[in-house]
Amino acid sequence: MAVPPLVLTLGEPAGVGAEIIAKAWTALKDQAPFAVIGDMRLLEAQGVPVREIGDVADAGMFFGRALPVLNHPAPAPIEAGKPDPRNAGVVADWIERAVSLALMGEASGVVTAPIAKAPLYAAGFRFPGHTEFIAELTADAPYPGTRGPVMMLTAKDLRACLVTIHVALDQVPELVTEERVARTARVVHETLRRDFGIARPRLALAALNPHAGEGGALGLQEITVLKPTAEALRAEGIDITDPLPADTMFHEDARAGYDAALCLYHDQALIPVKTLDFWGGVNATLGLPVIRTSPDHGTGFDIAGKGIARPDSLIAAIRLASEMAAKRARA
Amino acid sequence: MAVPPLVLTLGEPAGVGAEIIAKAWTALKDQAPFAVIGDMRLLEAQGVPVREIGDVADAGMFFGRALPVLNHPAPAPIEAGKPDPRNAGVVADWIERAVSLALMGEASGVVTAPIAKAPLYAAGFRFPGHTEFIAELTADAPYPGTRGPVMMLTAKDLRACLVTIHVALDQVPELVTEERVARTARVVHETLRRDFGIARPRLALAALNPHAGEGGALGLQEITVLKPTAEALRAEGIDITDPLPADTMFHEDARAGYDAALCLYHDQALIPVKTLDFWGGVNATLGLPVIRTSPDHGTGFDIAGKGIARPDSLIAAIRLASEMAAKRARA
Repeated sequence: MAVPPLVLTLGEPAGVGAEIIAKAWTALKDQAPFAVIGDMRLLEAQGVPVREIGDVADAGMFFGRALPVLNHPAPAPIEAGKPDPRNAGVVADWIERAVSLALMGEASGVVTAPIAKAPLYAAGFRFPGHTEFIAELTADAPYPGTRGPVMMLTAKDLRACLVTIHVALDQVPELVTEERVARTARVVHETLRRDFGIARPRLALAALNPHAGEGGALGLQEITVLKPTAEALRAEGIDITDPLPADTMFHEDARAGYDAALCLYHDQALIPVKTLDFWGGVNATLGLPVIRTSPDHGTGFDIAGKGIARPDSLIAAIRLASEMAAKRARA
Repeated sequence: MAVPPLVLTLGEPAGVGAEIIAKAWTALKDQAPFAVIGDMRLLEAQGVPVREIGDVADAGMFFGRALPVLNHPAPAPIEAGKPDPRNAGVVADWIERAVSLALMGEASGVVTAPIAKAPLYAAGFRFPGHTEFIAELTADAPYPGTRGPVMMLTAKDLRACLVTIHVALDQVPELVTEERVARTARVVHETLRRDFGIARPRLALAALNPHAGEGGALGLQEITVLKPTAEALRAEGIDITDPLPADTMFHEDARAGYDAALCLYHDQALIPVKTLDFWGGVNATLGLPVIRTSPDHGTGFDIAGKGIARPDSLIAAIRLASEMAAKRARA
């Protein structure tokens, strides 16, 4: 059986979403089909042929000739660079509808264009971002394995997965617990097997302290938390290293030695990802009942409406979701 | 007046020092001369022509044909990969003599091959490393400007300077004070002008927290410490940014916007440096009466004596010291 199409959500209407989606369709129209959930007028304004569809399954029929859209209009006028909280509800609706289609199996995965937090919060949205919202939307769906969400960022051949994400740096040491590290490692191990087709995933665990604590002289968490956790994980069959000095983990030769890095805090993962590939990074949410990826950048209010937004990251996100969906369908 | 030669210290005799020095001489023998302070037998064993000299000034006469050495033998037998604490004293003597020659103006700068901490500590050495030892050796020498030491790491076009260095991550937030950030910025600003020939240096200040604290939601240090410090520095004429999200500071386009990054902790600087250029990174000590650089790697006990050590980083360190010495001589 063929894998169903992906669905893309348009994201913040005043951002670069429609522009990069139109550019991504132009680049990918000879490949696996996807459908967009969003305001059709906004997509038509991008100068690409657009086709309204009523059913995701019809995306494949038209994809080579026009961008297929499940039209779901925004209520308030849309002005590039100027988000309107009156459109926040529909932005959330688009995501909800995309996730629902994925849960029903009509879509094989969800790729989300960037949203803006301020208008969503002004309208009463109560999630830190897509990741947590989608976790909530899928909380009651069955899932075979350790449940996430775990955030994975990719850049070139690097997959960096995060143990903590959006917290102040001085909160990180106490949040790096055996339980959090072990759960993240299990989600990553299972996901690499099922959604990435890696039979025996090799995980590299980053240390918290410089020089991996240098035997305790530069911090104790490697000895008290990280090494015992790695040993316990190996005992349950997960191939993970002892904590490694983070600075020597991300060069080309080092990356060849593992399939995913487990990073303990935001910048430990995001610095190498954005240094290696600022334009093409992808954010994937692991350990949920639906496959979800997104470009690793924001709404681009400063460049919205100018026609200069780069679709590299969205194209990479679509490709990754497509590969993951194909693997999961076969698993 | 011609700039005097550099002096290189041999470093830990059981490590890769002699091997990479011999390889660096082979690569650089048609360029500006340097002399080595160390055990001549060890250098002769590397298969390059070696010439004993009594005076650094004679290095230039022989440099094109042989590696000039100020011979200063190690007392105990040397075995690759097996450091002997009985040689720790002479390792420290080599550094002391090199610094002394630089202070007297006979050498234009010092390039140090890696040392090993364990044998030095076993022999009573009481400094965390070269940087602090050389700061102590030069403490009584006059110095026109804000005194360091400040550690700068370079890789390709990136210069990353550290506000804190070898401390546990959970100590970092309290050590990031207005005083430390300001002193580091002043040293870097003055050094870039004098030793790097950059008339109007542009400094980029890294934030401590993810997304630069996101307006206080992800940490307060950007608001309470970093932004006020940057404002005060700009008021004294130093071109420095407000705190920037660290993850988006190090890609190619971002690097083009500044001459040096001020990083707040070890891995924030070392992750981008070693990701961008694992083999060619250089460590430079700024704000001291003598110019000092070193390769950005260790003694390589695991590969010592095998002939496979790469001299890239030492060669880059020699080139950088040479450029800095020429600039400082003209300043």
